[in-house]
Amino acid sequence: MKALVLSAADAPLTVEELPDPVPGVGEVVVDIAAAALNHRDVWITKGKYPGIKFPAILGSDGAGWLEGRRVLLDPGFHWGEDPNAQSKAYHILGLPSHGAFATRVAIPRANVYEVPAHLNMEQAAALPLAGLTAYRALFFRAALKAGEKVLITGIGGGVALFAFQFARAAGAEVFVSSGSDEKLARALAMGAAAGVNYQTEGWAKQLKELAGGFDVIVDSAAGPGFPDLLSLLNPSGRIVLYGGTRGPIPNLNPQQIFWRQLNIMGSTMGNPTDFSNMVAFVSKHKIEPVVDSVFPLEEGQAAFERMAGGVQFGKIVLRV
Amino acid sequence: MKALVLSAADAPLTVEELPDPVPGVGEVVVDIAAAALNHRDVWITKGKYPGIKFPAILGSDGAGWLEGRRVLLDPGFHWGEDPNAQSKAYHILGLPSHGAFATRVAIPRANVYEVPAHLNMEQAAALPLAGLTAYRALFFRAALKAGEKVLITGIGGGVALFAFQFARAAGAEVFVSSGSDEKLARALAMGAAAGVNYQTEGWAKQLKELAGGFDVIVDSAAGPGFPDLLSLLNPSGRIVLYGGTRGPIPNLNPQQIFWRQLNIMGSTMGNPTDFSNMVAFVSKHKIEPVVDSVFPLEEGQAAFERMAGGVQFGKIVLRV
Repeated sequence: MKALVLSAADAPLTVEELPDPVPGVGEVVVDIAAAALNHRDVWITKGKYPGIKFPAILGSDGAGWLEGRRVLLDPGFHWGEDPNAQSKAYHILGLPSHGAFATRVAIPRANVYEVPAHLNMEQAAALPLAGLTAYRALFFRAALKAGEKVLITGIGGGVALFAFQFARAAGAEVFVSSGSDEKLARALAMGAAAGVNYQTEGWAKQLKELAGGFDVIVDSAAGPGFPDLLSLLNPSGRIVLYGGTRGPIPNLNPQQIFWRQLNIMGSTMGNPTDFSNMVAFVSKHKIEPVVDSVFPLEEGQAAFERMAGGVQFGKIVLRV
Repeated sequence: MKALVLSAADAPLTVEELPDPVPGVGEVVVDIAAAALNHRDVWITKGKYPGIKFPAILGSDGAGWLEGRRVLLDPGFHWGEDPNAQSKAYHILGLPSHGAFATRVAIPRANVYEVPAHLNMEQAAALPLAGLTAYRALFFRAALKAGEKVLITGIGGGVALFAFQFARAAGAEVFVSSGSDEKLARALAMGAAAGVNYQTEGWAKQLKELAGGFDVIVDSAAGPGFPDLLSLLNPSGRIVLYGGTRGPIPNLNPQQIFWRQLNIMGSTMGNPTDFSNMVAFVSKHKIEPVVDSVFPLEEGQAAFERMAGGVQFGKIVLRV
């Protein structure tokens, strides 16, 4: 098979011929048609993940063909019995096992789902990990209800965009923030109630004036702006944190948390039930993943560079 | 009637003769037999609460007689319709309305509950605000289940002791921390699984070795030790914060929160349902509030000084 291969930390990705995968017990081999990038993949190329072995085939998101059916892949393995948290054995497609940036991948049959009928293969490939993360954050963790006011920070990222689309489909009024006016404009065109640029002075006050307050905030930045987000929550509001791209939270006022009965909830990825529910939700609401750009597998290195640049709006897809 | 009166900020409290309270619509006048102090009362004497008018009668906790029945008082007014958070109109007995440090108090009939049969008046007076706060934190917020491992920080304070007793009664395995070895010894004698002094080097590591990890932590300190508490939570663990005596949380690692799916929950006091459930729980489990000391009303100033000193273990009660 052909695969996009990382041969060493910081080396450019190249397409190589490798032996076909051999399915283990309970596994099937899926012919990949499209795959999508996640920030995790970029970090792995920098040697940031422990236990990496070269040559590595990355890629947590894939869609393709199995037995004549269009399928997409749940990237999670061994979540465990507890719906509230993953087991220590939990890991995802693309490291340590070979991932989806290849013409073929071996995966447990239980991880294979039918592609929602309204999606093409590139849209389907854009869905798994980001859709799963957004779905769990909004519904399993924050228990979002119709009519609530929601803020999605960092709109343009894969999870943020799915959270935006899912929350709107669930009947919430959804506001957004971004460091890019262009991304804000695109979110407004997609139905955002309003948006603010967090690089402008007084962004939190602007949001307060626009929205009043939020019932739910979905954030993956953390960092120095996090206390401002707390101040934007309504009493008993929930903020779901699924990342920390801006680093540690430097100064949190306990009174703000206890007096207003706030909830700070960590969330990461999701279990098979979350995945199954997410795919059903996408089918029911005919949600179309936002695809930023499509690169042929041979131009995978350029796709990674676009991801690292942070200018994308939606998922970056590889056509395999 | 007689009342313990605060005539100015930082003035010593003195017993004065004041006119009897006149009940408003829906109100009754309760003959107070015992009352109890909260930190809030001490803060009010320092002029720290907005809107204070002198002479003020403090006191949020009271028990006494109404129509020949032994009663205790729910100190909360106007919580509002939302069980998840109090309304802006919410306030508690003792400021701005005259409180329980008097021979008589006017209060809505709906705030009057029968004293559990196994309690004397001093124990009953110790129960309301601290019991309410502990009950909501453990059960409404953290949804504590039998068999879970719980850490109560700052054992010796009123809320912490009720949280300790309630969690044990609910079938949890309960650990404690304190800055005082004597308080730890008393908690061990009451059935704590183990305790550590948070002023010793490596206290978090000690707790980790003793307990493995906690499903629920109840804390009112916040401050620099808070991230250590988070590190002691099991995956998907809940930490309920009901105060902030040690000030802002200086440095929180987002990865710890999202990767382990943690929950940080603010909680304060409770609504009438929490209060009613708490009194029923105390009756059912025959819980006896820990009374640190009893002072006659005339020696109220000495009671306040004991509270301010922080040496108490349990509630400080005034016999009226």
